[in-house]
Amino acid sequence: MNDSGRQKKFQQELERQKLDGFLVTHPANLRYLCGYTGSNGLLLFLGGRRTFFTDGRYTAQARAEVAGARVVIAKGPLLNDAVGMINRLRSAAIGFEADHTTVDAAAPMGTMVHRRIRWRPTAGLIQRLRMVKDAAEIQLIRKAVNLGAEVYRQALAVLRPGVKESEVAGVLEFAARRAGADGMSFDTIVAGGKRSALPHGRASNQVLPRRGFVVLDSGVIRQGYCSDMTRTVHLGATRRWEREWYKSVLEAQLAAISTALPGSLAGEVDQAARKVLKKAKLDRFFTHSTGHGVGLEIHEPPRLGKGQMERLEPGMVITIEPGIYVPGKGGIRIEDMVVVTAKGCEVLTPVTKELIEL
Amino acid sequence: MNDSGRQKKFQQELERQKLDGFLVTHPANLRYLCGYTGSNGLLLFLGGRRTFFTDGRYTAQARAEVAGARVVIAKGPLLNDAVGMINRLRSAAIGFEADHTTVDAAAPMGTMVHRRIRWRPTAGLIQRLRMVKDAAEIQLIRKAVNLGAEVYRQALAVLRPGVKESEVAGVLEFAARRAGADGMSFDTIVAGGKRSALPHGRASNQVLPRRGFVVLDSGVIRQGYCSDMTRTVHLGATRRWEREWYKSVLEAQLAAISTALPGSLAGEVDQAARKVLKKAKLDRFFTHSTGHGVGLEIHEPPRLGKGQMERLEPGMVITIEPGIYVPGKGGIRIEDMVVVTAKGCEVLTPVTKELIEL
Repeated sequence: MNDSGRQKKFQQELERQKLDGFLVTHPANLRYLCGYTGSNGLLLFLGGRRTFFTDGRYTAQARAEVAGARVVIAKGPLLNDAVGMINRLRSAAIGFEADHTTVDAAAPMGTMVHRRIRWRPTAGLIQRLRMVKDAAEIQLIRKAVNLGAEVYRQALAVLRPGVKESEVAGVLEFAARRAGADGMSFDTIVAGGKRSALPHGRASNQVLPRRGFVVLDSGVIRQGYCSDMTRTVHLGATRRWEREWYKSVLEAQLAAISTALPGSLAGEVDQAARKVLKKAKLDRFFTHSTGHGVGLEIHEPPRLGKGQMERLEPGMVITIEPGIYVPGKGGIRIEDMVVVTAKGCEVLTPVTKELIEL
Repeated sequence: MNDSGRQKKFQQELERQKLDGFLVTHPANLRYLCGYTGSNGLLLFLGGRRTFFTDGRYTAQARAEVAGARVVIAKGPLLNDAVGMINRLRSAAIGFEADHTTVDAAAPMGTMVHRRIRWRPTAGLIQRLRMVKDAAEIQLIRKAVNLGAEVYRQALAVLRPGVKESEVAGVLEFAARRAGADGMSFDTIVAGGKRSALPHGRASNQVLPRRGFVVLDSGVIRQGYCSDMTRTVHLGATRRWEREWYKSVLEAQLAAISTALPGSLAGEVDQAARKVLKKAKLDRFFTHSTGHGVGLEIHEPPRLGKGQMERLEPGMVITIEPGIYVPGKGGIRIEDMVVVTAKGCEVLTPVTKELIEL
């Protein structure tokens, strides 16, 4: 779907919500709806038309990127110009992104409009549209995931006892830069030995131990779209309990993947992973949810957590990433990105999940 | 000043503001007030005591890091537990960070407390305390600035025509990783030739041209504190007008530095730079403000922009970074970090500002 298709779909949503207009300011939503990739932009839906406001720093960029909206270069705060247009209406209900507008930023909005204009806080309207990816998006995500896998392999090549976690992360990030990534989706996690028991163990200056698990969780941004993958490898020979733990996490991950079908509830996918770990008496060490949507942002709906009632649909792109974290012993997480298809799902991450001993 | 000194100072501010309590949730403010560096934390000031809430993922980290507050591990949303404590009071005015709380997040707050508890939106209270750095902070900032300078030099060593901007950025970022940086303060800017006319030209996949300016703007985070520096170098021999432009920007930067004294208004520092560029008829190409505070965040108050009435004080750490951006021709920006002292200011950035031809 191109920008105009997306704008049309959102316009229909506004009609369902009985909104006469809408202010879009969240960068990922701007990019999704009109292609703009800069900061400080505002897209106003009003009376079936779109007007895009930015400041003088982005004149050239806005003219090159913005599709389906008239571009206005504002002199002062963008909101002033947008409100100028809104105030020409006799009365209207105008939506704004309450999940991306601070209380402080919203405070003056009420006094700027005349008394027959009402602001309507909304949350997640555009994010809900973004949940189901179109073919062009899936193609971009596929390329981001492949790039993420490629740089993971380069990092794995330098991973060994005595190397700093930050060195491994640095190799991975430099490889991403070289390959033309826009940046990283999040702070790269490289967590070795006991640090692998930290679910969010950002790469530190600690050296990797002679033996133990190493969790490597990383993602790249390529043409705006995020990738996200985790593998856990083992330094030195594994002990029996380590192999068993790894096997349980992998089984949990595969069980979750096999339930990621159109029509499944997000909570059912989570439950599938949790059930396997419960059988292995490891469920109390699984302290986060099973996954989340990924697209222009690294964390998007749906959330695959306990009791989540969102129904999976073809075109949703999600992570499946159960893990266990045992204080003092170590942790294991295995994460793929998958796209829900008409009949099931397809794993996008092209990297083995066999337990690797280094 | 240690955490307890900072907490005490903030407690005094609460009394001035006639607040009986305060919810701190913004990560940089949490780190400043109690040392916590994780995500999902809440520090509640109430009745002269501090309680810190986080979730089970951060139990060990909170116990290790948090100073001057009792640590509570919450089962559900942290706000529920905090409100539980607040609701024990008969009546109270409780401040929250309206500049870091979305309308959506604030919406349920009103109904959670009983009717004699009032929420009071505030903005920038802790940021104002953070504006003036203590000796320990200045020491940390100095080290971050030195590290930022060191990795800049490594990037400069690979900068030449035909090299991709992203490669230069990659070398810089990898060097930062290797040297133990926590991360980068912002997306590294490497903008060559005509792209140097983009004030925010994030390193792209374009190769550097045979001749023209290259703007290199980068910063590292080290032990939580940010650095920020910009240099502009020239590929190939400069022409006369290029040398003149460079000289004007450098003069503007030095003029601004010489006015960065205790007692000066932030707007006066900005004006000093603008005046020099006006004389050279280049002021219309200087499209941003002269600088900003730096500390735990890359952009902090004060803002050194037109008409800003903030008075500089010893201990403030700011950038001084005038620039000109001439579409189709190129751009130049020169940026140092300086600390305001009792008698004037000290430039922290230990890198020459002579025009370099490569």
